Amino acid sequence: MDHFDRRRERTIAFLDAFLRGKRGRFGRINAWGPDALEKLGPFVRTGKLVRSGLVAVGAAIGRDRIARGTTQAGAAVELIQAGLLIHDDIIDRDETRRGRPALHREYALEGRALRVREEAHFGEGMGICLADIAFFLAFELISTLPAPPRVRTDILALWSDELSLVGLAQMQDLFFGETGARARTGEILRLYLYKTARYSFSVPLLTGAMMAGAPPAVRERLGRLGESLGVLFQLKDDDLGLFGNEREIGKPVGSDIREGKQTFLAHLLFRRADRAERRRLERVFGNRRITPAMVDEVKDMVEKLGVRRDLAARMRRLRRQAVARIAELPSAGPARRILSELIESSLDRRK
Amino acid sequence: MDHFDRRRERTIAFLDAFLRGKRGRFGRINAWGPDALEKLGPFVRTGKLVRSGLVAVGAAIGRDRIARGTTQAGAAVELIQAGLLIHDDIIDRDETRRGRPALHREYALEGRALRVREEAHFGEGMGICLADIAFFLAFELISTLPAPPRVRTDILALWSDELSLVGLAQMQDLFFGETGARARTGEILRLYLYKTARYSFSVPLLTGAMMAGAPPAVRERLGRLGESLGVLFQLKDDDLGLFGNEREIGKPVGSDIREGKQTFLAHLLFRRADRAERRRLERVFGNRRITPAMVDEVKDMVEKLGVRRDLAARMRRLRRQAVARIAELPSAGPARRILSELIESSLDRRK
Repeated sequence: MDHFDRRRERTIAFLDAFLRGKRGRFGRINAWGPDALEKLGPFVRTGKLVRSGLVAVGAAIGRDRIARGTTQAGAAVELIQAGLLIHDDIIDRDETRRGRPALHREYALEGRALRVREEAHFGEGMGICLADIAFFLAFELISTLPAPPRVRTDILALWSDELSLVGLAQMQDLFFGETGARARTGEILRLYLYKTARYSFSVPLLTGAMMAGAPPAVRERLGRLGESLGVLFQLKDDDLGLFGNEREIGKPVGSDIREGKQTFLAHLLFRRADRAERRRLERVFGNRRITPAMVDEVKDMVEKLGVRRDLAARMRRLRRQAVARIAELPSAGPARRILSELIESSLDRRK
Repeated sequence: MDHFDRRRERTIAFLDAFLRGKRGRFGRINAWGPDALEKLGPFVRTGKLVRSGLVAVGAAIGRDRIARGTTQAGAAVELIQAGLLIHDDIIDRDETRRGRPALHREYALEGRALRVREEAHFGEGMGICLADIAFFLAFELISTLPAPPRVRTDILALWSDELSLVGLAQMQDLFFGETGARARTGEILRLYLYKTARYSFSVPLLTGAMMAGAPPAVRERLGRLGESLGVLFQLKDDDLGLFGNEREIGKPVGSDIREGKQTFLAHLLFRRADRAERRRLERVFGNRRITPAMVDEVKDMVEKLGVRRDLAARMRRLRRQAVARIAELPSAGPARRILSELIESSLDRRK
């Protein structure tokens, strides 16, 4: 069982106990309290929980033992992630998440049974609240971390700063999706950096490093390593979103296209397309009635225009950059090996 | 100039400087960053900022000087409040807030100018993000409070716990609004307690008390005092919503009825109405085409069935309870006087 699977089990066990411990307090407020806890647990469990695994990696840099409280910090990261995903699915109008109804859709379906006036609105409203609750539960876990109060407030400062930027990147993403405006290359890369890379990789690694009391120089390197890893992952995700297997990736192939998402892939594609191709792309991107044939047409164009090849080259460059950044880290303990394996398995993954 | 006006000015000045200080960092992410800061400042400024005033009261219990950092803690409370209001307006479908377009409507109008595909969805998505950013900015302010790290994490623990409960109460409120189900008395009172009273009164008072290092016994009393004050305010609001002056209260008289809101007043009214009266009420509550004549009919019924009289009696009881709880607090400094004046001005207020 590898590092991430092991950490995933520990995080889930911790989170289950934490959510179970909230049942009494939440149950005294109203029936939505226990229900919210029962939704959050399984929602987190359907994920790979890479972020909490990265918290543990950050806490293990240059050492053999992982600092006390690391599992709790990892569980908090996963609750933040749950909150962001729930809001994201509302904003992106994703009806499914990992092969199941998105949480706001789950509420909408329950609303139907409860004969609410407008089930879609009910679902979205409940989803907004559940995500907020997930954020607050995460901050509660930070407030009680078994670490010196100074470490807790340092982590709080890191998170609150980075999460504001995630919100701004999400706004930009929505704007691009809703207008079809073509972004500049720098804008897309900043989107990748702040919406995903730093938040999903740098922040967990830095959180772990703070738990372990790592010196500023190590933290700085980890922050930059997270950026390389994060963009690499994101580019791989974009590729899988179009060329992956629907059952494996857990969402319809081409859903990024239907939403008109400004992925780096789409960006290159539009830049390379000639006028006639661009007109065809414009009919497909952001088209809610997208057909499998339209998706296939986009796939063909991505291959033909060399977009896929260039993305692969960019991923190789990011991989080299990440490998070099890993080599700069203190060598004691298993952290460097785990990070190197993560890069390789990420590039090989099918979901 | 009274305590609350004075504190309001200080909070606004602090918040303006804080938001100005974020411009550089937010501006480097994308254009929505400075825009978000420019929206949050004016949005907070349109409010009465009672909560930040209460933080200062809590910090002044039993002493003449207010602890350092109290203004910062108050500004953080107001940012949380901004985030909750923005999400609330989306969930309650309120298109205006304090006589201006609600923030998600402001984004929707901008979206129209930007030719977004669906302006309502764009507005709501942007509003969800802006509220999240307001939460994270508030937590950032907590992480840097000029107070011992232990005090910061205590405040973080208090807030994250109470804000989860606000989310649950908001879910319950949405459920009642969307189903028209009649709540039980205990359910409505718990809604008042967790959606408004504790969050708007107990939490600010306790935050201030923590800044001042008040002992647990004082904090416990402040928590309970906040509950009495909060429910009292809420009942007065309900009364003003029906019997107030439209120009003074800043929203149409009877808008709670039009929205079918489960106020305590509506609850008592439905319980006391006979079958014929209840049928008439059901035609009026939640009716978007409500007429002034219908509102007058409800007013008459509220008076005739003794609902208004009973609400007044309940407010008197809460007032006595609050006065007794104030008397239990340490007497030095102006805090007790400010709290007593707050009760009287609250009961006399016309808006």
